[in-house]
Amino acid sequence: MDLQALLNDLLRETSPLARDGRVAGYIPALARVGPERMGAALATVEGEVLAVGEAEAPFSIQSLSKLFTLALVLARDGEALWARVGREPSGNPFNSLVQLEYEQGIPRNPFINAGALVVTDRLHGMAGDASVALLDFLRQESDNPTLAVDEEVARSEWEHSHRNHALAHFMASYGNLEHPVPAVLADYVRQCAVAAGCADLARAGLVFARHGLRADGSRLLTRSEAKRINAVMLTCGTYDAAGDFAYRVGLPCKSGVGGGLLAILPGRGALCVWSPPLDEAGNSVAGAEFLDRFTTRTGWSIF
Amino acid sequence: MDLQALLNDLLRETSPLARDGRVAGYIPALARVGPERMGAALATVEGEVLAVGEAEAPFSIQSLSKLFTLALVLARDGEALWARVGREPSGNPFNSLVQLEYEQGIPRNPFINAGALVVTDRLHGMAGDASVALLDFLRQESDNPTLAVDEEVARSEWEHSHRNHALAHFMASYGNLEHPVPAVLADYVRQCAVAAGCADLARAGLVFARHGLRADGSRLLTRSEAKRINAVMLTCGTYDAAGDFAYRVGLPCKSGVGGGLLAILPGRGALCVWSPPLDEAGNSVAGAEFLDRFTTRTGWSIF
Amino acid sequence: MDLQALLNDLLRETSPLARDGRVAGYIPALARVGPERMGAALATVEGEVLAVGEAEAPFSIQSLSKLFTLALVLARDGEALWARVGREPSGNPFNSLVQLEYEQGIPRNPFINAGALVVTDRLHGMAGDASVALLDFLRQESDNPTLAVDEEVARSEWEHSHRNHALAHFMASYGNLEHPVPAVLADYVRQCAVAAGCADLARAGLVFARHGLRADGSRLLTRSEAKRINAVMLTCGTYDAAGDFAYRVGLPCKSGVGGGLLAILPGRGALCVWSPPLDEAGNSVAGAEFLDRFTTRTGWSIF
Amino acid sequence: MDLQALLNDLLRETSPLARDGRVAGYIPALARVGPERMGAALATVEGEVLAVGEAEAPFSIQSLSKLFTLALVLARDGEALWARVGREPSGNPFNSLVQLEYEQGIPRNPFINAGALVVTDRLHGMAGDASVALLDFLRQESDNPTLAVDEEVARSEWEHSHRNHALAHFMASYGNLEHPVPAVLADYVRQCAVAAGCADLARAGLVFARHGLRADGSRLLTRSEAKRINAVMLTCGTYDAAGDFAYRVGLPCKSGVGGGLLAILPGRGALCVWSPPLDEAGNSVAGAEFLDRFTTRTGWSIF
Repeated sequence: MDLQALLNDLLRETSPLARDGRVAGYIPALARVGPERMGAALATVEGEVLAVGEAEAPFSIQSLSKLFTLALVLARDGEALWARVGREPSGNPFNSLVQLEYEQGIPRNPFINAGALVVTDRLHGMAGDASVALLDFLRQESDNPTLAVDEEVARSEWEHSHRNHALAHFMASYGNLEHPVPAVLADYVRQCAVAAGCADLARAGLVFARHGLRADGSRLLTRSEAKRINAVMLTCGTYDAAGDFAYRVGLPCKSGVGGGLLAILPGRGALCVWSPPLDEAGNSVAGAEFLDRFTTRTGWSIF
Repeated sequence: MDLQALLNDLLRETSPLARDGRVAGYIPALARVGPERMGAALATVEGEVLAVGEAEAPFSIQSLSKLFTLALVLARDGEALWARVGREPSGNPFNSLVQLEYEQGIPRNPFINAGALVVTDRLHGMAGDASVALLDFLRQESDNPTLAVDEEVARSEWEHSHRNHALAHFMASYGNLEHPVPAVLADYVRQCAVAAGCADLARAGLVFARHGLRADGSRLLTRSEAKRINAVMLTCGTYDAAGDFAYRVGLPCKSGVGGGLLAILPGRGALCVWSPPLDEAGNSVAGAEFLDRFTTRTGWSIF
Repeated sequence: MDLQALLNDLLRETSPLARDGRVAGYIPALARVGPERMGAALATVEGEVLAVGEAEAPFSIQSLSKLFTLALVLARDGEALWARVGREPSGNPFNSLVQLEYEQGIPRNPFINAGALVVTDRLHGMAGDASVALLDFLRQESDNPTLAVDEEVARSEWEHSHRNHALAHFMASYGNLEHPVPAVLADYVRQCAVAAGCADLARAGLVFARHGLRADGSRLLTRSEAKRINAVMLTCGTYDAAGDFAYRVGLPCKSGVGGGLLAILPGRGALCVWSPPLDEAGNSVAGAEFLDRFTTRTGWSIF
Repeated sequence: MDLQALLNDLLRETSPLARDGRVAGYIPALARVGPERMGAALATVEGEVLAVGEAEAPFSIQSLSKLFTLALVLARDGEALWARVGREPSGNPFNSLVQLEYEQGIPRNPFINAGALVVTDRLHGMAGDASVALLDFLRQESDNPTLAVDEEVARSEWEHSHRNHALAHFMASYGNLEHPVPAVLADYVRQCAVAAGCADLARAGLVFARHGLRADGSRLLTRSEAKRINAVMLTCGTYDAAGDFAYRVGLPCKSGVGGGLLAILPGRGALCVWSPPLDEAGNSVAGAEFLDRFTTRTGWSIF
């Protein structure tokens, strides 16, 4: 199979679909990104990186950060983490707060905001600054020391963080935060504001495709832990469209409102695609279609 | 790997865990089943069947029926089905009715009762009697013509069907049932009351492991459709514990309150385990642990 | 105060407001009623009846029936009724089903459909046919033996009763119905389909203004029971707009989707107004404004 | 009627019932109050004050403050306030957050915490410090210049305010707060921490019994506004037990978790009773029974 040709075809076929989506507009720094921009990169476990379009251009990783902070915390805490956050899909977005109330301040999974705040709270306790720990990790795995927080995005996120403040205080009222709300949120907005490109993220995602092995050959996660993160990604990684992604794409994926989508091909590689316009569930329209066609043509879904 | 020895070991190790669960008690016919009973069978795509314990003993398949009725309807209707039922996990059980209301009578997925009623409604329209169509299919795939509805269970289910009546009428109020509520429910209780053994169900489950090919070599589902059913199974097949099953077991699974659990090993086989006592989410306690250890030892999780 | 002149003024002032509402359209028999029709009648405890507009024209009483069936059951059962139905406002309409689930099949109050079904179930047990018992009562209190069920409305309601069937089966699943669902619903749709005029209903409403005394001087309810029904009416009688009615009108009121509104003036009289077009909460637009201005000009709010 | 004798009887009869309740324990300063303490005072529109038990002892007014801050804001803003807060009962406490979400950040009524925070936000804008404005008002109406904030309670409330912070940030995310969350909450905890006695509060409550006239004869509210506050109190003043209070007591009431209950007798007077142990809905057990018996024996319910 000529994978480079496939990537080229898929970019050409799917980039026009971006017109059916809308770029995230809740903060100006995100709203300004050109809707026509698109890139993709496939990193293989053999060490190859195939790229197409704007594969090097840094974009705001947003919720893609949740995947890596989860890995960093799970590597240190192991199963103990699950006492503070569940690993079940969250169902209807409407229910986020009511479920938090119904389930006594324990978020449903680490990929909804409430759950990611718990992970950040824990990482803050381990590392001092969660966004620094995340950046260190991403720089090493991507071999790109220029990765950085986009300070304008971070500032803007902070100014629009009433809802995340509400979630954090609500969990704190149940005793499910160890650190002060402002400290956790400050870390959280910075981790979401990291900018990186498709090639960087595909390389970093290899840790999950290699079942826990880092770029330097050291082990971050046990084989079983890595598989389990892949499972959580599949069931919870794409907001309220996880079922649809499993159905259409059939790979563990994590998405971000910056338009990034990172898919793991266990044992094979990691594929990151970026196109800013989102569908109603908050996932990249063209990116989702890119992944759908990729697994259809390669037959590489996990099912 | 000596799979027979592994099955023997797992039965011995996990059967004592049944004491931590409770046999479903909402109808007398189910409540009477001995809590210590257990069996398992692994059918491989090569045609072998490995069995352990009471692998031939028929038990009430209950929600395992939902997997096969979905396949029969999807084979005929294709994607059109998804206009009437979603394929997203349902989140907290508490929300079943409120989500049905919020989402205008469209159930979240075909494996919650509301969604299965829509599938049965459709199968009733296609086949006249959904339970007959299901039995025909199971008899052919398992090569066991003695499979039958347990009439006592069916009667008892009917007498305890107020909640399913409520769901059906509620969907009918949104125009999401084509046939009269009593007709759909009559079929539904009979399909749930089919009795079959682990070996029968493992054989029938091979249609998903073979990506759509039936026992006689004919094609029920396209390769893509079969993979997609496996995906729905993984994200929605074990009630509100789908995330936990994906995490622990890492295989598409469907469970029933009769204590049956059917797991699909894509490209390899199907594994059915039966032990009546259930955990709080309604899944077999010993059965879940059996599957967890099976994938841990074989490394055959899909992730 | 010249009450007749006041009623005349209010009809003239408020009837044009009907154009801001919509006639209930869920069944054809209701949808056909002319939106411009309007009438009102004030019955005083002294025995006078002041009328304006189409005060004698029969209309579909719908949920006004719930007030009288509650009185009939409370007269017989007393406080025991409250074990099966609450007396708290129901909050957001969105929550009807989820609250029924959260509160184990006990409806919030006797004026939401679920609660009225419990009352009808009880009246069915006492009287054989709840709609007959209701008609007997209304005929006696209004001194109008021609009152009857509108059979076309009853038939039409029955054909559109999936949602009420769902509520009834749901409560039955919690053991909160004594009689078969079809029997309770048959009574219920007939009680809602009774047709009566403003003058009839104002006369019948006097039993609450006279604190329990019927037209013939006999006692239906103790003084305390009658006051308590007035209290439930104030807090729960106008769907999700009870707070707004208490605020604007300041009288116990019960409304129906036929466009009727019955207000109780404790110790003084009962005022019924009818205008079919409804607001979003299901209350008569012109009728509500009529009552609002009535209490503003007379100063007869209970607060 | 010998009202003093009645008050004496009611205190004797109802004080033993306090043993069925539990003193609010969420902050130490409240948890320490003796459960056996009790007092009551009836202030009449004629200027008389009848007292029994510890009628002068200051207690933490908590949510009773919401009644007075609402009056101060309504006096200035009039109907405009209702664009930012509703006046419907809130239904099940479970729904507080989900309703805020469903209704786009508009709290159901001014007596739930979310609604009171909006009122405080507005009063903060008018008066600089909401608790100072409240204290000024209470001192003048009660003619007791010694009324003050209990600083220990205020500090303790602040330290346990995660949930109120969550509510405030959540409303801010919908644009329904004008001032910074910390400023609004600082005022809010101080207004709740005001300490006053039954006689003070009964005197202050006369403004509602006199339909808007203050102690010095000046008008705070129009007659209509005062009646409308009484209506909101009746439908929303006692948490999720408003229906039960309307049913049993039949008077507009406001309660606080400090154990205070203030009832308005329109045109007659105001009755405040205090006994710290609360029922599950958060209302004083002995206080509620005191009021229930008071209206039963006097016949002074508004219905």
